[in-house]
Amino acid sequence: MSPRVEPDRQSAASGRITLGVAGLGLIGGSFALSCKKRRMRVRGWDADPRACAIARTVGAVDSAGCEADILAGCEALLIAVPVRSLHEILGKLTALAGKKPRVWFDAGSTKTDAVRCAAELLGKNAPRFVPCHPVAGAEHSGMSAANASLFAGKTVLVCPEGRDPSAVEYVRSLWTGCGALTKDISAAEHDRLFAFISHLPHVLAYALVGTIGTNPKRDRLLQYAASGFKDFSRIASSDPDMWRDVCISNRDNLLAAMDEFSRETALLRKAVAEGDGLLMRDYFDKVKNLRNGWLASRGE
Amino acid sequence: MSPRVEPDRQSAASGRITLGVAGLGLIGGSFALSCKKRRMRVRGWDADPRACAIARTVGAVDSAGCEADILAGCEALLIAVPVRSLHEILGKLTALAGKKPRVWFDAGSTKTDAVRCAAELLGKNAPRFVPCHPVAGAEHSGMSAANASLFAGKTVLVCPEGRDPSAVEYVRSLWTGCGALTKDISAAEHDRLFAFISHLPHVLAYALVGTIGTNPKRDRLLQYAASGFKDFSRIASSDPDMWRDVCISNRDNLLAAMDEFSRETALLRKAVAEGDGLLMRDYFDKVKNLRNGWLASRGE
Repeated sequence: MSPRVEPDRQSAASGRITLGVAGLGLIGGSFALSCKKRRMRVRGWDADPRACAIARTVGAVDSAGCEADILAGCEALLIAVPVRSLHEILGKLTALAGKKPRVWFDAGSTKTDAVRCAAELLGKNAPRFVPCHPVAGAEHSGMSAANASLFAGKTVLVCPEGRDPSAVEYVRSLWTGCGALTKDISAAEHDRLFAFISHLPHVLAYALVGTIGTNPKRDRLLQYAASGFKDFSRIASSDPDMWRDVCISNRDNLLAAMDEFSRETALLRKAVAEGDGLLMRDYFDKVKNLRNGWLASRGE
Repeated sequence: MSPRVEPDRQSAASGRITLGVAGLGLIGGSFALSCKKRRMRVRGWDADPRACAIARTVGAVDSAGCEADILAGCEALLIAVPVRSLHEILGKLTALAGKKPRVWFDAGSTKTDAVRCAAELLGKNAPRFVPCHPVAGAEHSGMSAANASLFAGKTVLVCPEGRDPSAVEYVRSLWTGCGALTKDISAAEHDRLFAFISHLPHVLAYALVGTIGTNPKRDRLLQYAASGFKDFSRIASSDPDMWRDVCISNRDNLLAAMDEFSRETALLRKAVAEGDGLLMRDYFDKVKNLRNGWLASRGE
């Protein structure tokens, strides 16, 4: 396998590249659509026959059926399922008879578990499993929300540590072919950082809407909810299966992040209870400057 | 005073209506711009001379100077300052010599304090102070963010309890003139509901960004922050003075809301710690349905 394979050109020239996509949700479906657009062959699979049907209808895949089918002639295989299902799907696929893909990769929101799965199920072939995380989620989920340009301009994090360099390069080229930028990170650091920057906000958004939902005045509260509540809670419309899995998979980091957050909230609670306007003013001001500086650094 | 005064028409016909706006921030400035557009006379005041200068430059006011000036010929006066400054400003204005406006109203995010201020400072004239809350905030603040159409299609909550009905009607007509819809609510219920639906999310957004800000890996964390973090934290870019005041003014309701939220978070923390996927799946699913139902009820 060449370290600089360009799937686009090879596909256009020889029509030979075949990719497999296990899990036809937002991420798998969007990846499939983008690859099909670039004239690769894509074989899909999903536990839900409706997702397979939609994928066939919208032309995201050349075929979508049982697990065994996606392996036929498949050069690289993306597993894009809720992170706790990776073990089961990878286990099923590796247990099948016949030739296996040269490269495996995933797209889950936690990476330490993915590394562990690969080691356990692929043995000496584990270095040809490349853990990836496209930072391109949305609160809309499922194959019907998929689109070929989902990854355009987005970052895909890749964990090259202990991986076969040519497999890493190959997977990188697949993502850049979708319009994404790739960036390296270690699996352990990925999980520590994303506990704070992504998993914690999701849990808080769920808890906030849960707080409203269990309130006896729920309906009246929702009548007055406006844009602040809407934006804050957007991620609470995310896929429940996916986020249950993320919370279980990244448990220790998430608990640490939740505890840090509780300490900050306790500090603010005390200031509110004591009417400590100086502390609040100072806290809110620092936070506003931090966020505005972050936005500015992104050119926003 | 007629209960059905139509400032628009009267202003166009006689050019006589003069309004005062104390506090030329996002809300006061936008109100002034909208009224000027409808050819009323607007006298403004702000503690910050720069806000006065901007207001004059963009034509939001006919004059903007000292407190005394805004009273000259002023029929109705909007006080749009951080809620804890209402007492000081209303005190100053009522202490001035000369004729006072027939109607006073405010635009703060808490209403019980406004009712209290009016009773204390206006005495028997308190019923001609109409507590209002335009639900049209934004994370951008200040006169430079003001625009004439800020209130178009937005809801302005009005507390008519114990007020002079003609004063209430007059203030309603001023808001509808800005394109807003008005809705009645009692001051006490307003503060209870908004503690949950608005003040709590603001405090949580501040605390989340604060959690990131105090983390030793802050810069690295912000590198990976994406759209979820951005939307969740939008309201953490809100005006620190305004939100310090809201937190102090609505203390008891806010503390109750924060405690409810802590209970929900503790429930989720336990589920994460114990790997209770069933509870999480169920919780996230209920929340997603609740939020999506809310969006659907708004036609979104």
